[in-house]
Amino acid sequence: MESPRFSIGVDYGTNSCRAVLVDASNGRELAASVFPYPSGKDGILLDPKDPNVARQEPADYIAGFFFTVKSVVAAGKKIRGFSPERVVGMGVDTTGSTPIPVNREGVALAMLPKFKKDMAAKAWLWKDHTAHAEASRITKVARKAKVPYLSKCGMAYSSEWFWSKIWHCQKTAPAVFKAAWSWVECCDFVTGYITGNSDPLSMKRSICAAGHKAMFHEGWGGLPGKAFLRKLSPALADLRDRLYSTAYASDEIAGNLVADIAKKVGLPAGIPVAVGALDAHYGAVGSGVKPGTLVKILGTSTCDLMVVPNKEKLEDIPGVCGIVPGSVVPGMVGIEAGQSAVGDIFKWYVDYLCPSGFSKGNPHANLNAAALKLKPGQSGLLALDWNNGNRNILMDPLLTGLLVGMTLHTTAPEIYRALVEATAFGALTIIRRIEEHGVKVREVINCGGIAEKSPLVMQIYADILNRPMKIAGSSQTCALGGAIFGSIVGGVYRNVEEAQQKMVRLKPKVYKPIKANVKTYARLYPLYRQLHDAFGTSGYSGMLANVMKELIAIRGGACR
Amino acid sequence: MESPRFSIGVDYGTNSCRAVLVDASNGRELAASVFPYPSGKDGILLDPKDPNVARQEPADYIAGFFFTVKSVVAAGKKIRGFSPERVVGMGVDTTGSTPIPVNREGVALAMLPKFKKDMAAKAWLWKDHTAHAEASRITKVARKAKVPYLSKCGMAYSSEWFWSKIWHCQKTAPAVFKAAWSWVECCDFVTGYITGNSDPLSMKRSICAAGHKAMFHEGWGGLPGKAFLRKLSPALADLRDRLYSTAYASDEIAGNLVADIAKKVGLPAGIPVAVGALDAHYGAVGSGVKPGTLVKILGTSTCDLMVVPNKEKLEDIPGVCGIVPGSVVPGMVGIEAGQSAVGDIFKWYVDYLCPSGFSKGNPHANLNAAALKLKPGQSGLLALDWNNGNRNILMDPLLTGLLVGMTLHTTAPEIYRALVEATAFGALTIIRRIEEHGVKVREVINCGGIAEKSPLVMQIYADILNRPMKIAGSSQTCALGGAIFGSIVGGVYRNVEEAQQKMVRLKPKVYKPIKANVKTYARLYPLYRQLHDAFGTSGYSGMLANVMKELIAIRGGACR
Repeated sequence: MESPRFSIGVDYGTNSCRAVLVDASNGRELAASVFPYPSGKDGILLDPKDPNVARQEPADYIAGFFFTVKSVVAAGKKIRGFSPERVVGMGVDTTGSTPIPVNREGVALAMLPKFKKDMAAKAWLWKDHTAHAEASRITKVARKAKVPYLSKCGMAYSSEWFWSKIWHCQKTAPAVFKAAWSWVECCDFVTGYITGNSDPLSMKRSICAAGHKAMFHEGWGGLPGKAFLRKLSPALADLRDRLYSTAYASDEIAGNLVADIAKKVGLPAGIPVAVGALDAHYGAVGSGVKPGTLVKILGTSTCDLMVVPNKEKLEDIPGVCGIVPGSVVPGMVGIEAGQSAVGDIFKWYVDYLCPSGFSKGNPHANLNAAALKLKPGQSGLLALDWNNGNRNILMDPLLTGLLVGMTLHTTAPEIYRALVEATAFGALTIIRRIEEHGVKVREVINCGGIAEKSPLVMQIYADILNRPMKIAGSSQTCALGGAIFGSIVGGVYRNVEEAQQKMVRLKPKVYKPIKANVKTYARLYPLYRQLHDAFGTSGYSGMLANVMKELIAIRGGACR
Repeated sequence: MESPRFSIGVDYGTNSCRAVLVDASNGRELAASVFPYPSGKDGILLDPKDPNVARQEPADYIAGFFFTVKSVVAAGKKIRGFSPERVVGMGVDTTGSTPIPVNREGVALAMLPKFKKDMAAKAWLWKDHTAHAEASRITKVARKAKVPYLSKCGMAYSSEWFWSKIWHCQKTAPAVFKAAWSWVECCDFVTGYITGNSDPLSMKRSICAAGHKAMFHEGWGGLPGKAFLRKLSPALADLRDRLYSTAYASDEIAGNLVADIAKKVGLPAGIPVAVGALDAHYGAVGSGVKPGTLVKILGTSTCDLMVVPNKEKLEDIPGVCGIVPGSVVPGMVGIEAGQSAVGDIFKWYVDYLCPSGFSKGNPHANLNAAALKLKPGQSGLLALDWNNGNRNILMDPLLTGLLVGMTLHTTAPEIYRALVEATAFGALTIIRRIEEHGVKVREVINCGGIAEKSPLVMQIYADILNRPMKIAGSSQTCALGGAIFGSIVGGVYRNVEEAQQKMVRLKPKVYKPIKANVKTYARLYPLYRQLHDAFGTSGYSGMLANVMKELIAIRGGACR
């Protein structure tokens, strides 16, 4: 019998990071540790004057690495067969696009005394929407210049991405921009730090983070050309030389754990660390993504991920933001779409608006239980899921939430349910768009806390998407994905498919569509789509006078 | 010196009734008593399966009369100069259209053992919206038949009114309809009862209640003709003969207080009782309505009332529901408009949705205080005030609430403020429509609890209507109106104008428009109007893609 081998995945989410120690032979999670970021509100640095601002403290990432990895190694020591020497590899994923300004040595400016208090020097968290004007401008200039740079991101650039944020920094915080020798995505920042290679030019950057978010594509020679960048700003063109010309998939080794860090966490030096990636992409791998399978990562926002083998011809999909070779599974084209806010909308409702009658104990659970008793359509409510803008298929951060159908008897569970339904209608809109472009969604696997904890959300998704909702076996699919790539770079498996066969499973519980509910939601979805198109597109010029009437008619039918 | 004379006004609201004892020489309120209706939720009989249902227990009205009038007479006895013999008259107002099915003797069916538990035998409270299908049908048939019956009610009949409700009863509760020898408006029911004349044929019916709500107009011979009613239903045509052919203004005596009732409340028999009217109309008189003055009665719903001297030519005003000679002030044409829900919307938010952080003590006061600190536009929110349909200018009960602009940071006070603003935008929409038809609004006087208690609401109304908001001096303007008509039928004054000069005053506090706020709201109103027309009219076919964007732009400006 072989001696056991172990792998560690480290996953940096929006509010906390976690590490898991995994048995590389079967994917079993032997130990886990969570570190909530200590800075800001729930780990996010906010500006009370501008809801678009969302930054993070880079030092929190480093503190989180030490805390969580040290914890799981210590916990591992109590497990039979484990020893630190048997850890074969490690993989790190983070949120993104979360660019960080760094100096020539790759040190985050925020960690230097001079910029300690400067919000622009922090990590620009994925959900920071301050750069919406720059994003529109990039879209406009790219379309006019007829360059191909937007073809892989739905023909619209986002305020959540690399170039928008950096350009916004140049405009609004020139001192920070000037001091930034380069900019590094969060996942590269962490792998660079732990492998002792933070040099902006020589570190191995992630293709997954570079992909559409920095408009990197081998087809056009990597990052966008200087001529194009100069049209945005000469300073951005200058920056191009201080970024990167190659990007790597996560089956490559980014580097090896350096001695002083290894020592601090109780591991031997030299453990190979996979090239980093974005959390959702590792999560898809940890959930069992494969051709025909859509993995939905249900978190504060959602990420929808699919893969298409390189050999199949994949057309560009308008309004779907990331089509990047190797971003999820090496050798396949990754499709990434998603919704800017899902769990965040439920959390907002609970944190800001939950009535006292539901706020005792666990408000989410209370609202879930009450909403689960309602029938589809019974409330007469319909919502749009745009409280944080719309990532796909409209790609417009300057959109907001909407709720229609309230009477004098509308209750909190009804509103909560309408918000859940809105996110499901948003999810359906993405699936329909992907299928319209030839990629069939044959299976849906969900992962993330919501998928495990909320029968309400899962049943509504099953009914609205009209497909069985399967749930990933692991509660930490992103971290598990990290461990999978750790086991690949550690030589346990040759590729993702081989590793998934051993390390990934589904939960036994499957939520199946309920016929009557599917029928009601099939009547509600066209109304959602009407609001979606009326408020979200400039092409719509129909009427809306039917909306309230039809909701009332559906309500009447549901109550009978 | 003359010996003092007194008058009593009795006002039946949506959730309670009250009586006031007034010094007829100066309008001073010497005693007041309130009686919350004991039946149902807050006095209203609801159906959990149908939010449109709103009924009341007729016995509550009678119990309320005894309790409140007895109380004020008893309290009066402690006042120097008062004696029951010096009460010269009495006036009663109620909600409406609140029709009650009665037997041949005028006894409410709900008070007979056979119908005690039958919801259809109860009083059909003004805000009962079950008859929306019948209302649409009446509108359609009347328009097609080219009869003039809708010309005084904005060319659309309402589900809140007499014929819709009776017809709905015929269709859905035929046993009740058959047992009902006649139908009586609530205000006539009460005056009939206390004057001992409940005979449906001989009792003196109120022109104010008959007016547009039963499509009564002397110009076309009273109630709608049988030929027209037969087109709706032969049974309604038959009913016409069992209703009335004359209706009276409130400067007429309906009858005299009968001995057994007088004895129970401690008054002498024979006191003259004015012909009844709807609460808002008495409230307008008690607030000081006169040509050029709009009285806004801010309660659960609002009523907007104006008067135009008979000699001035007044054109029909589409979407404005009541244009009735003598309905408010004898000798003048009354204009009645209003919003289906105002205070009810704030109450709904507090009762159903108020977050725990604001629910301690007085939630309305907590939300008011927090909302008062916000600047116009700062929340980025915009709402429609249609949670209970739209009475004017759309006259459509099948409309519902809408809220747009939510982010992940939207708070309860922001929503509360947006709801208040929505009701003000609704109020502005009515004023604009009235002015477009030649009736200038030179002064706005507000009355009702909200006007007195909420600086938030009053300041927002001042800013959105861009006019000073004055407040009626009395807290019980409807009951004061009753006392005014009581003093007229009691011979103290010859007419309303003379009585108002002595009995009506304003509060010293006036809310003046604040320039900067007026400017911001002038930017928000077109967006409200866009939503209003898009969701509320079938004529709209513009786009809405600008709405969220402009709200964000206004929010940006407000935060600066």
